[in-house]
Amino acid sequence: MFESAEIGHRITKARYKREEPKLREALLEAQFDLLQKQDFPVLILVAGVDGAGKGETVNLFNEWMDPRHIRTEAFESGDGADSGRPRMWPFWRSLPRKGNIGMFFGSWYTQPISERANGRSKKSVFGQELERIRHFERMLAAEGVLLLKLWFHLSKDAQRKRLKKLGANPLMSWRVSSRDREHLRNYERYARISAETLRETSTGEAPWQIIDGSDPHYRALTAGQLLLDAMRRRLDGPAPTMSPPAPPPAPSLDGRDLLNSLDYRARIAPTRYEKQLEKAQARVAVLTRDKRIRDRSLVCVFEGMDAAGKGSTIRRLTRAMDARFYHVVPIAAPSDEERAQPYLWRFWRHLPRHGHATIFDRSWYGRVLVERVEGLCSEYDWMRGYHEINEFEEQMAESGTIVLKFWLSITAEEQLKRFREREKVAYKRHKITPEDWRNRKKWPKYERAVCDMIERTSTGHAPWHVVPANDKRFARVTVLQTLADALEAQL
Amino acid sequence: MFESAEIGHRITKARYKREEPKLREALLEAQFDLLQKQDFPVLILVAGVDGAGKGETVNLFNEWMDPRHIRTEAFESGDGADSGRPRMWPFWRSLPRKGNIGMFFGSWYTQPISERANGRSKKSVFGQELERIRHFERMLAAEGVLLLKLWFHLSKDAQRKRLKKLGANPLMSWRVSSRDREHLRNYERYARISAETLRETSTGEAPWQIIDGSDPHYRALTAGQLLLDAMRRRLDGPAPTMSPPAPPPAPSLDGRDLLNSLDYRARIAPTRYEKQLEKAQARVAVLTRDKRIRDRSLVCVFEGMDAAGKGSTIRRLTRAMDARFYHVVPIAAPSDEERAQPYLWRFWRHLPRHGHATIFDRSWYGRVLVERVEGLCSEYDWMRGYHEINEFEEQMAESGTIVLKFWLSITAEEQLKRFREREKVAYKRHKITPEDWRNRKKWPKYERAVCDMIERTSTGHAPWHVVPANDKRFARVTVLQTLADALEAQL
Repeated sequence: MFESAEIGHRITKARYKREEPKLREALLEAQFDLLQKQDFPVLILVAGVDGAGKGETVNLFNEWMDPRHIRTEAFESGDGADSGRPRMWPFWRSLPRKGNIGMFFGSWYTQPISERANGRSKKSVFGQELERIRHFERMLAAEGVLLLKLWFHLSKDAQRKRLKKLGANPLMSWRVSSRDREHLRNYERYARISAETLRETSTGEAPWQIIDGSDPHYRALTAGQLLLDAMRRRLDGPAPTMSPPAPPPAPSLDGRDLLNSLDYRARIAPTRYEKQLEKAQARVAVLTRDKRIRDRSLVCVFEGMDAAGKGSTIRRLTRAMDARFYHVVPIAAPSDEERAQPYLWRFWRHLPRHGHATIFDRSWYGRVLVERVEGLCSEYDWMRGYHEINEFEEQMAESGTIVLKFWLSITAEEQLKRFREREKVAYKRHKITPEDWRNRKKWPKYERAVCDMIERTSTGHAPWHVVPANDKRFARVTVLQTLADALEAQL
Repeated sequence: MFESAEIGHRITKARYKREEPKLREALLEAQFDLLQKQDFPVLILVAGVDGAGKGETVNLFNEWMDPRHIRTEAFESGDGADSGRPRMWPFWRSLPRKGNIGMFFGSWYTQPISERANGRSKKSVFGQELERIRHFERMLAAEGVLLLKLWFHLSKDAQRKRLKKLGANPLMSWRVSSRDREHLRNYERYARISAETLRETSTGEAPWQIIDGSDPHYRALTAGQLLLDAMRRRLDGPAPTMSPPAPPPAPSLDGRDLLNSLDYRARIAPTRYEKQLEKAQARVAVLTRDKRIRDRSLVCVFEGMDAAGKGSTIRRLTRAMDARFYHVVPIAAPSDEERAQPYLWRFWRHLPRHGHATIFDRSWYGRVLVERVEGLCSEYDWMRGYHEINEFEEQMAESGTIVLKFWLSITAEEQLKRFREREKVAYKRHKITPEDWRNRKKWPKYERAVCDMIERTSTGHAPWHVVPANDKRFARVTVLQTLADALEAQL
């Protein structure tokens, strides 16, 4: 893997002085075009052996280009862990926005490699982590992120010489850390794990580029040229085409589906409702105040057709919880900061800390519901959405989050009844808009999208709870009971 | 203070049933208008005695209005402390955006009151905190935030009865916490401190509203009506006029000022430059890796006329630092999320954690520089800016942040020379725009604004360092030395 990075690449100072200004100018121009287009972000992962020029390259890129549109992010291992969020959370939150360049010094590779190298993670776990990384990077590529992965290499011999030289200079000896010395001692092991990582994660969308780091001139020009080529190809070429999607799932031939085969007669008599609700609320109240929840968190997703009763159910739920515990996030149109990021970014930002809950009134499922039906994204985008969502929820579950998803299911007739009622009651009138009527016309399309969604995203760690909601009382009590059951089972 | 909240206010169920729908409709209407206008946010502080209906009111407001445009935030005391940010940071970051309603359950009052009540803070500290709160709320009001402060009261007797009743009901006993019992024991002390707080912070812009919390109907209608009145007055009335500013500072009569009396001949010979730079960088390198910085953080602000050399100085600075330590934040046009918030919000979000640094390439001083000169804000806005900025920096300093501010000072002639040079060198050409030439024509106005800024915001905890920068080498070395001196002095 590192063979050609150890043959002693070298560029003379004279050649560097001749070529550097041209490269610099071209990079600046590319950066300017990127900024003008505001079409995609560039993300550079700077990884590799310590002392092989990672920091220097980051500084050089900042020097060559306009630093105001470069975001350099440095990550420490375990950045996300202490907050109780998924391991990838710090990276998710720090992605560069469209038109910008992000440089990640330390990335999602750091922790898997170092944990594998020091023996803290097993081979199988390591393999799973690399697979997850591949999926994540494919998602970034599909979202338009130009991902450049640079690996700076240094042979063991070169590394030893470097540390010796630095240590001898009193003005530079601060550069040598105990970690450097430890890495040198375990050089072979690190090299082996790194090589495996690079092989396993060099994909078509995001291949690794290995750079010999021993000569500053060589590595600077090489890294710069790689960045330039990647940016120019994307800026001047056609938009990237991702692999074609599998055909969308076909509707069932007999017309029966998850939703229309549901029993909508389920109801709770008004006389028994208050008592049952109070009982379920008391259970939720006790469980969400349980000490064991301090190391866990809760994410509840509410989806449903218009007028299915999401808002009123959420209110019954929140009333049972301490206001310090939960946070309701209603999903509306994205802001411009959100639009400049991958699709899931606007949900990542709302993930709860341990000991807290986020309740989403509509959610990331918009991708495979409204965006699919209304054609707001391409077929490929929503088709890949299922898998991306499953990975997202899996990561939440792994970090200790209890994920609950409710589909409040009403019939088309019930919706019509509720729409008419809303038009009549003055203070509910704002709740009904021409758009609601337009959406209603697409009921069969939505129904199909909902069934596909439930089938493809109901997972062990984050199952869908489809709740018949023609009777609001039944739906509310059922949601509260389901949540209480889940908390009891998981705590 | 609480006398009229203890006379036993009460509203019959019948009257409540009659009035509630009207109030609800009016609130919904007001919320709808607020959302349409997108002109200002509403922030409701929900404070007071436990059990007096705070949580219930928050839920009720969520029920009465459209919860998708209400953000309920619950704060725990010490939320910000562990991250090393200022105490107010969690509140800053959670303000509602224009068009939205924010409800703070627990606020900047919680910690000062409870620390004073349990004797952990002295009277003088408490007084300072209340003063700071007044300033902060005045700033919010000036930024257009409609602030409604609701204090829910309960007499000691009513409190005792409530806890007894709840404890007797097995389904409700979870509502009684040990904190509740402790508060009851120390009722008088809490009441006295609270009364003092309310008196001291009931200002013209943001008066407290005290509500008798013993009767659910009374408190619900009262709180709702207060919110409705406040929203309607603001929605229908003229824009609020803040107290008129003091006259802007007059220019000095003899034409001499801080900038033109500076010695611009200071320079470092090219032959001595590299060595001096390396020496200063080594000092910064060692100091920013010092263990003691883990409990501190660093904020560097770079300001200067166009072409003063901010970017290139920052690059010399960052090269001495570990990339994991710092973060450069270039200040450009605000995003729509930033525009929907108070002016300082977009800087609050970038404050470093302990053990980290943020370097601002331009900063909050834009308010008293470009916004003043270009008339982008009112005279009152930039006049109050000095004081708001001083408070902001003081809070940073108090939370352990070392704040350094550099004005890189060049003469008009030097700027002209650099502009012409930029036009000649191809890869620097993008750095010079027609706007730069336009700004240049306003040099005297900028000069005056700069002198006012330095005079009014050079404080003990965050002094300005005015660096003659006609010689770039001198400026760079001076900045690095100044930073090293400051770190040495403060660590």
